[in-house]
Amino acid sequence: MRVAVIGTGLIGTSIALALRERGSAVWLSDEDPAAARLAADLGAGEPLPGTLPAPVDVAVIAVPPVAVAATLAAAQARGLARCYTDVASVKQLPVSQARARGCDMTSYVPGHPMAGREKSGPAAARADLFLGRTWALCPAPETSQAATDTVTALVRECGAVPLHAEAAAHDRWVALVSHAPHLVAAAMAARLEPAPATVLDLAGQGLRDVTRIAAGDSGLWTQILSANAVPVAEVLAAVAADLAEAARVLSLPGTGEADFKSLSALLEQGQAGAARIPGKHGGAPREFTAVQVVIPDQPGELARLFDACGAAGVNIEDVRIEHSPGLPVGVAELSVRPAQVPALLEALDRGGWPVRG
Amino acid sequence: MRVAVIGTGLIGTSIALALRERGSAVWLSDEDPAAARLAADLGAGEPLPGTLPAPVDVAVIAVPPVAVAATLAAAQARGLARCYTDVASVKQLPVSQARARGCDMTSYVPGHPMAGREKSGPAAARADLFLGRTWALCPAPETSQAATDTVTALVRECGAVPLHAEAAAHDRWVALVSHAPHLVAAAMAARLEPAPATVLDLAGQGLRDVTRIAAGDSGLWTQILSANAVPVAEVLAAVAADLAEAARVLSLPGTGEADFKSLSALLEQGQAGAARIPGKHGGAPREFTAVQVVIPDQPGELARLFDACGAAGVNIEDVRIEHSPGLPVGVAELSVRPAQVPALLEALDRGGWPVRG
Repeated sequence: MRVAVIGTGLIGTSIALALRERGSAVWLSDEDPAAARLAADLGAGEPLPGTLPAPVDVAVIAVPPVAVAATLAAAQARGLARCYTDVASVKQLPVSQARARGCDMTSYVPGHPMAGREKSGPAAARADLFLGRTWALCPAPETSQAATDTVTALVRECGAVPLHAEAAAHDRWVALVSHAPHLVAAAMAARLEPAPATVLDLAGQGLRDVTRIAAGDSGLWTQILSANAVPVAEVLAAVAADLAEAARVLSLPGTGEADFKSLSALLEQGQAGAARIPGKHGGAPREFTAVQVVIPDQPGELARLFDACGAAGVNIEDVRIEHSPGLPVGVAELSVRPAQVPALLEALDRGGWPVRG
Repeated sequence: MRVAVIGTGLIGTSIALALRERGSAVWLSDEDPAAARLAADLGAGEPLPGTLPAPVDVAVIAVPPVAVAATLAAAQARGLARCYTDVASVKQLPVSQARARGCDMTSYVPGHPMAGREKSGPAAARADLFLGRTWALCPAPETSQAATDTVTALVRECGAVPLHAEAAAHDRWVALVSHAPHLVAAAMAARLEPAPATVLDLAGQGLRDVTRIAAGDSGLWTQILSANAVPVAEVLAAVAADLAEAARVLSLPGTGEADFKSLSALLEQGQAGAARIPGKHGGAPREFTAVQVVIPDQPGELARLFDACGAAGVNIEDVRIEHSPGLPVGVAELSVRPAQVPALLEALDRGGWPVRG
């Protein structure tokens, strides 16, 4: 593949690195020449010259959401590529702005890779950033099948899993899984701002986790949220209503535990919702069964355990080890496909490992 | 120290493990004999006999908030210990209930370790759970200095940092840093419950962090929240109001970015609040180094990997596997003690496993 990457930040440079690793030719450009040079020095490709002998297969527009349409129009005006995609985290806004600018919509396949890092810029890029991640593609009604196929192939080259969706559905979905959670975290973190320092000394990992993303850049997030305003507002209104109801119930004088049914229901729904989030890299943990095994905490024991599993043809999909350093035993939680549970239990029994019920 | 732990759930068993590691004698009991037996099997101590030759130094009452007073009364009636503490996450309720039952308040030092996990039960316990964590102690006016000193020493033995506070102040503080955040996480996670599975495939680390604590046991949390109802309600009402206002602004038709001042202000206040959480908190980093290894995703590979580690005398303290079903490779993150890193890297190199930088 021959690819141009416009915007060599974290995402653009990571795409370039991933494609170069698979043998593609990549040209790079950025508004900030130093960023493009750094990306080139990192092995992400060659600087994009003023003219190319022929259009590239795909131009990847890796710029902020509000800049996508103008960048697309300029690239199309110079005939840079046979087809175009972007990586903005909202899709209706760049699509409607591109349409308003009169961009050629047949060659434009709006996209959004669900990957990122807490760091930004080309230096934080990595070729494996998209490995196993979902990458949404939202072809417009006008988008040609050829363009969609080419960009889908590019997504696969990056190691990601393409997910085709309508732009409006995509925006509702990211409102739910990304944008609204950011504001919820911010609203909780905002309560800490006026608190005495001693109180913050009581903060545990739970509070840190709930509020971690609130540390994100507030200017960028105002942009993101305003670009996806209505879907975000719908989620926030529902969360606010649930919290207001919980506050009302809790502040009723003389309420007993039996009166907290709506509170319990909310907690239960939260538990169920949290359980639906797939594991890292989009794996679906709900497809696996966990078996807990008590193991001596010493070198060689895990090897013996996994040997036995391998010999029985059982593939361990995930493993978590619960133990305290220095203690004589730990508990290994092995996740396997449900069909492999009988073989696993038999192997454990033969090897003399106690299984926890 | 000679210590009795009553209630061998996550917290009780972790305390027992931590004290055993420092050479204390620990006796265990639990309403559920299987839980006490499992804790004993994990090396947390000996089952508590009907009578002991002499009172222990401290009895740690690690039962739910509403059960503390009755458990304390029973332990005092049998003369189990010289002094008593509990680990309930609210303090005014058990103190007032203990007083109402006529418990001896001079020997009772109400306590609350700021540590936990989203898993529960003795199998999830770990000796280093309290390392570097704050542990609130709320002596009543009647509590003797000797009792406070003894329990403070126990807290230090567990590796935690004691913080003395009034019970009422403690309850307001934990409402802010622990109880309200739990409900906020639950309210966000609850929105995921009815979402199509495809949407959840878009979930990233941010959503996972915001909602992680919502996985906690809903029955236990209903108890905790109702035991600290008014302080929690105050925080929730404020968060709900901020979110409702954000939703209102975002859903105004024709609002431009310039109109999102209150949204920006909330995001900024959230950023400031998140920045106030002490950096080191929630984890005195466990003393392990993580090494990422790329492994083929097939039966026998983990066995081969752990074989090589075992042969090199390297003990794997923890392992996490990241992979996508269907992809040919995964990444195993091996945690080892820093001193073992060179031996591990050599073993990986000899075995031909690529290490991710």
